[in-house]
Amino acid sequence: MAKCFLVTGGCGYIGSHCIVEMISAGYDVVIVDNLSNSDPECVRKVEEITGKSIPFYKDDLLNKEAVDKIFTKHKFLGVLHFAGFKAVGESVKIPLKYYHNNLTGTLHLLQCMQEHGVCNMVFSSSATVYGNPQFLPITEYHPVGGCTNPYGKTKYFIEEMLKDLCFAEKNWNVVSLRYFNPVGAHVSGKIGEDPKDIPNNLVPYITQVAVGKRPHLNVFGKDYDTPDGTGVRDYIHVVDLGLGHVAALKKLEENCGWKVYNLGTGKGYSVLDMVKALEKASGKEIPYKFAERRAGDVASVYADPALAEKELKWKAIREQDEMCADSWRWQMQNPDGYR
Amino acid sequence: MAKCFLVTGGCGYIGSHCIVEMISAGYDVVIVDNLSNSDPECVRKVEEITGKSIPFYKDDLLNKEAVDKIFTKHKFLGVLHFAGFKAVGESVKIPLKYYHNNLTGTLHLLQCMQEHGVCNMVFSSSATVYGNPQFLPITEYHPVGGCTNPYGKTKYFIEEMLKDLCFAEKNWNVVSLRYFNPVGAHVSGKIGEDPKDIPNNLVPYITQVAVGKRPHLNVFGKDYDTPDGTGVRDYIHVVDLGLGHVAALKKLEENCGWKVYNLGTGKGYSVLDMVKALEKASGKEIPYKFAERRAGDVASVYADPALAEKELKWKAIREQDEMCADSWRWQMQNPDGYR
Repeated sequence: MAKCFLVTGGCGYIGSHCIVEMISAGYDVVIVDNLSNSDPECVRKVEEITGKSIPFYKDDLLNKEAVDKIFTKHKFLGVLHFAGFKAVGESVKIPLKYYHNNLTGTLHLLQCMQEHGVCNMVFSSSATVYGNPQFLPITEYHPVGGCTNPYGKTKYFIEEMLKDLCFAEKNWNVVSLRYFNPVGAHVSGKIGEDPKDIPNNLVPYITQVAVGKRPHLNVFGKDYDTPDGTGVRDYIHVVDLGLGHVAALKKLEENCGWKVYNLGTGKGYSVLDMVKALEKASGKEIPYKFAERRAGDVASVYADPALAEKELKWKAIREQDEMCADSWRWQMQNPDGYR
Repeated sequence: MAKCFLVTGGCGYIGSHCIVEMISAGYDVVIVDNLSNSDPECVRKVEEITGKSIPFYKDDLLNKEAVDKIFTKHKFLGVLHFAGFKAVGESVKIPLKYYHNNLTGTLHLLQCMQEHGVCNMVFSSSATVYGNPQFLPITEYHPVGGCTNPYGKTKYFIEEMLKDLCFAEKNWNVVSLRYFNPVGAHVSGKIGEDPKDIPNNLVPYITQVAVGKRPHLNVFGKDYDTPDGTGVRDYIHVVDLGLGHVAALKKLEENCGWKVYNLGTGKGYSVLDMVKALEKASGKEIPYKFAERRAGDVASVYADPALAEKELKWKAIREQDEMCADSWRWQMQNPDGYR
């Protein structure tokens, strides 16, 4: 029997791509997702890609009884925990919603795991836990906790909980993966990032402009201390990210205790670099306008990915043109996402 | 009609003393306490001292429906939130218990408050949020978040949530009070600190030695960089602490938004100072033995209490001899606490 993992938030952008790579690596998965920011059609598409049937539960982690039932029904080796609200701006406006959903949801999940003797987890963390970079590239030893928004704080608080849990109970193994900027889509064009509202992230916004859904891109800030004045970020192909999770699953099997890895490429691209690359990939012109810097944005953020390469034997290999071609294919084939 | 406040953890050491001072200042209170680390006899004693009948609910903040019922039944001006697990050592061993109880409990409480339009809170925080002192005396501008144990992290995380909530919603007012080391008891000797197990705090341990319940005191560390080599802390009389809460309630009425104050005296006493003062107060010899330093303990911690004096018009006035006399009276009159 294959090793079975529960995937929370498995209908989301990153969760769904990870599942494809997990199944391809021989794992079984069960999905739990409350569909608050995702579409069940995604499960059907993942089944199409993988040729596997995937058990899916539409449940909320805030409903502990429902989660408990899933753990009673299935025997899991561990959990990949993607579920959580993730809109930075909304988290500033409605902090209680974020704290309750992300923290209480995670605590319910951890209690169910504890009660059912499941003590392996890969946690979906973020480079946001580093706050404003104090040095570049950002290593895993960079100070954490300087987050300025509730979304980022929930990621940091959950990491602290998981770390304390692993120190207290030696049978627990948790790998926290700190993502930089996931972009791209599965090469089939069947699954991809599907923002329900105005995209918060750059690439979906650009592809929506390219496909004619939005008139132009707003570029926030043109006088940053970067080669072209626009913000520089470390974009990573979501399929590479998925493969990083598969590598993390192998790490869990070594009884690794508490581990943290950056998932990034180590390369930074500016906003205008990405605009140009998406113009090339799509063959469309992307109109853009400069706007004021956004509060909290910084000039440059990029990873030192060496630790993941050393300890997980994993490295992001997909280049910018592949990221853009795959993002564009998904957008073009699904102009309205899964709807 | 008097202004009515809900007091969570109102049967605890600090909660019960605050209630006495609140009632004496003309406030009404309702208590909710799960009695996990307290005794309902405490309510009876507070009623004896104040001559007031106090509505009491034996409920757990983890049971949101139960909390909601209390908010439906009573009209509160605000909440004093004392409820929470507080044993540092246990929190390191059983972190999930602490994170779930303290964070989820608080989130349920905040949601009930939000839903019932109650948006004033005094939060029971701790000097532990400062972590290892980077300078002394500790002002409110000292960096926070360097906590090394889950108990301390829950206090810090809750402060961050409350701060974000006050920034997002301008009708919210929260005063977070960072206690240094509360000691002493009500002058009547009817209420006091009643540890259910081996005391975690110095003064109850000493008084239990003085009353013959324990053979000797362990003094952890004798070579700290302090006048006598033992750890120095800022002990504050719990009745002064109670009066500090009354001052904080008045601050809430100014629609103060998010505020943080140290509650301490600004004076540090060493372990051996406290032993001597309690020998004097009790007329008993307190045998003690030196033991190894405890992990995480630091040489000296004491407050700069100036901000509370300036903005709350409050100052701790009870001296060390009064702290010790009152602690001793409580211990002597109640050798087994409330039991």
